Amino acid sequence: MDNLSFYQILFSLALILVLSKLLSIGCRKIGLPQVIGLLFTGIILGLITLIPNQNLISNDAKIGISFLAEIGVVLIMFSAGLETDIKQVKETGGSALVITILGVLIPLGLGFVVSLILSGDLSDPKILFRNLFYGIILTATSVSVTVASLKELGRLKTPIGTAIVSAAILDDIIGVIILSVIISLDGALANGNTSEIGKQIGIVLGKTALFFVFAIAFGILIRIIFKKLSNRYDHHRRLPIFALAFAFFYAYAAEAWFGIADITGAFFAGIFLSGTKDSGYIEKRADTTSYLIFTPVFFAKVGLTSISSFSSIDPSFIAFGLLFILAGIAGKLLGCGIGAKITKYSFKDSIRCGVGMMVRAEVCLISAQKGIDAGIISASIQPFILVLILITSFAAPIILKATYKNEAHQDVSDIATIGN
Amino acid sequence: MDNLSFYQILFSLALILVLSKLLSIGCRKIGLPQVIGLLFTGIILGLITLIPNQNLISNDAKIGISFLAEIGVVLIMFSAGLETDIKQVKETGGSALVITILGVLIPLGLGFVVSLILSGDLSDPKILFRNLFYGIILTATSVSVTVASLKELGRLKTPIGTAIVSAAILDDIIGVIILSVIISLDGALANGNTSEIGKQIGIVLGKTALFFVFAIAFGILIRIIFKKLSNRYDHHRRLPIFALAFAFFYAYAAEAWFGIADITGAFFAGIFLSGTKDSGYIEKRADTTSYLIFTPVFFAKVGLTSISSFSSIDPSFIAFGLLFILAGIAGKLLGCGIGAKITKYSFKDSIRCGVGMMVRAEVCLISAQKGIDAGIISASIQPFILVLILITSFAAPIILKATYKNEAHQDVSDIATIGN
Repeated sequence: MDNLSFYQILFSLALILVLSKLLSIGCRKIGLPQVIGLLFTGIILGLITLIPNQNLISNDAKIGISFLAEIGVVLIMFSAGLETDIKQVKETGGSALVITILGVLIPLGLGFVVSLILSGDLSDPKILFRNLFYGIILTATSVSVTVASLKELGRLKTPIGTAIVSAAILDDIIGVIILSVIISLDGALANGNTSEIGKQIGIVLGKTALFFVFAIAFGILIRIIFKKLSNRYDHHRRLPIFALAFAFFYAYAAEAWFGIADITGAFFAGIFLSGTKDSGYIEKRADTTSYLIFTPVFFAKVGLTSISSFSSIDPSFIAFGLLFILAGIAGKLLGCGIGAKITKYSFKDSIRCGVGMMVRAEVCLISAQKGIDAGIISASIQPFILVLILITSFAAPIILKATYKNEAHQDVSDIATIGN
Repeated sequence: MDNLSFYQILFSLALILVLSKLLSIGCRKIGLPQVIGLLFTGIILGLITLIPNQNLISNDAKIGISFLAEIGVVLIMFSAGLETDIKQVKETGGSALVITILGVLIPLGLGFVVSLILSGDLSDPKILFRNLFYGIILTATSVSVTVASLKELGRLKTPIGTAIVSAAILDDIIGVIILSVIISLDGALANGNTSEIGKQIGIVLGKTALFFVFAIAFGILIRIIFKKLSNRYDHHRRLPIFALAFAFFYAYAAEAWFGIADITGAFFAGIFLSGTKDSGYIEKRADTTSYLIFTPVFFAKVGLTSISSFSSIDPSFIAFGLLFILAGIAGKLLGCGIGAKITKYSFKDSIRCGVGMMVRAEVCLISAQKGIDAGIISASIQPFILVLILITSFAAPIILKATYKNEAHQDVSDIATIGN
């Protein structure tokens, strides 16, 4: 290892694997979703790091964990893409769009209104953008926890499961576009160069459009190649290896060339391979790699980061922060729930949609960090985002599981993939 | 990612996976061992990094690759341990000891003799230790390439295969002890405190003995627990997860608590789980994780590091460096070959033993780095060690494969694990 002391992380990895498996087995025994066990592992790790002079979890180990967690997110989203039934996405596309639009607008509006507490002076464009930005942070959903929960419950491939995943992807895209536009606009304003605003919006929108042109054209080509490979080399190792390379490449290309989140790229790589002859085989192999190392590490990292950032709360910020959390929860619950209801989902499914979409994770943190780096919002917001992540990550799996109680399984194929 | 720009590595990972699979398929088609394809991937990557202002492989990507490669080494050695037939190790234990002792003494002697070129003044203890240290570097074998080659050839579980693995483990332990003793002795001399030498030797030997007491006591306990778990939860996910945690923990404990190389810890973790009911199941799951990401990245890293260090060769050092490489190859070939021959192996098996044991990799580099850090030897040695690694890593698989030509397979069970 060039820059990191390697062997330190081996202890953290061993601890994460044992704790997360034991806690997730424990959660399952008392009827809680197993992802709670995975998240609690991170919280325990985070509490360990608070002990003064501890050397159980070193800083190098934390960097290593973050790094593996990032690969884990890419793998999780690639798996989610692989599992997506494109026909269902087409069927739910219309409702997903309605769910997404309401699920973006309502949290954005609530976040904006709540931030008027800090300052209601809307004649100052700087303050206007800041307040808007607090709203934008709340638009970024992260369905990894929801996807894992639905998978565990065997409900990922149900109509509302597909609608949630489709809406989350649309949400990510719309969120990234709004985020990029606001950062560009704020930058243009800071330079006093208001004539550039139109151009900036154009560049951001153009890049996003180009990403889709690229993703679809290249994706169709790769799909044809994989179909041929599947016929010739059925269940050969080269298939999951090339598939994973494709996922990594798409994740890279999305972020490096088009400014789109890497997880969106990985998800689309999965979509383009879904439904091919060997997609089940590829998914099993990718899943083995995920559950053995990357998924437990990803969830541990979420818990770990949450705990270790709690020390920097600014007291004057607390009232706004607490309302901000409420706005985040209520915004998605109402926005996506209403969106699902008006697109003819049952009341129960609409609640599932609102609950599933309210979960925030790394995308929310990253959005906030971009705003902080650009000098638009205060760094004091981060601990509140972590509380929002914790509450939603804990509540969503529990509520989702409760809504499916006493209902027969429709999608039995998925149950085995998280169990035992 | 806290300190690394994450998405950069995704491109490198995609490139490594595609190149190494294509090149290893190509190697197999023309009759070369597949590991050559994996190593060539690293060389291509290394050549890319030599292009001025390239941004295909960033520095952050290199750190990430090194990190994944380290986990890869732990997984490879854990797999090797799992596959080891303990009965065979007991049977080959005597000959492994003879092979190791000659395989340590002859390269050490040759390295010492060759280093007299630099200065033959043996009355100066500083120079005496330096010359000894050049010999010690040559004692560190790295059988990952050999293990992978024998596995591919389906010969890992043959008597000479087991003898090579046993001898390599003993070699690692003896090498680490001598290394620690010499560094301690040099440190004690530098402080002018010659009375401490006996104590330093005692501490190093004591720690090594304690590691084995710990490894055996805890290992027997874990083996009993796994046997019970296997009976109750046959083929459950928890088995490979706990097994991997055990491997990571042993690797950590070896290095952090006893100063023994982490790969030795991982290997012993594998040994203690070998032959249990689910060891085959655990190995398959660990193998999937290895071949999908970690093993290609490990070999790519070896090639990458070799190329990128070539720029710093000191001209005055070249004559010594070239003889040093020859001493490294001849030392193991003669030492281990003679060791195998006098312990009743056939002439062909003795050649296999010498060739298998001559491979150097990360342990050799790490030994040299420790000597450089301690101010004992010159940093100019590193490029020559890389050439030694390259020559032995390329030659060993080719020669091993050639020696098995026209011989019937004795160990068919392994063939499937590397193929396709």
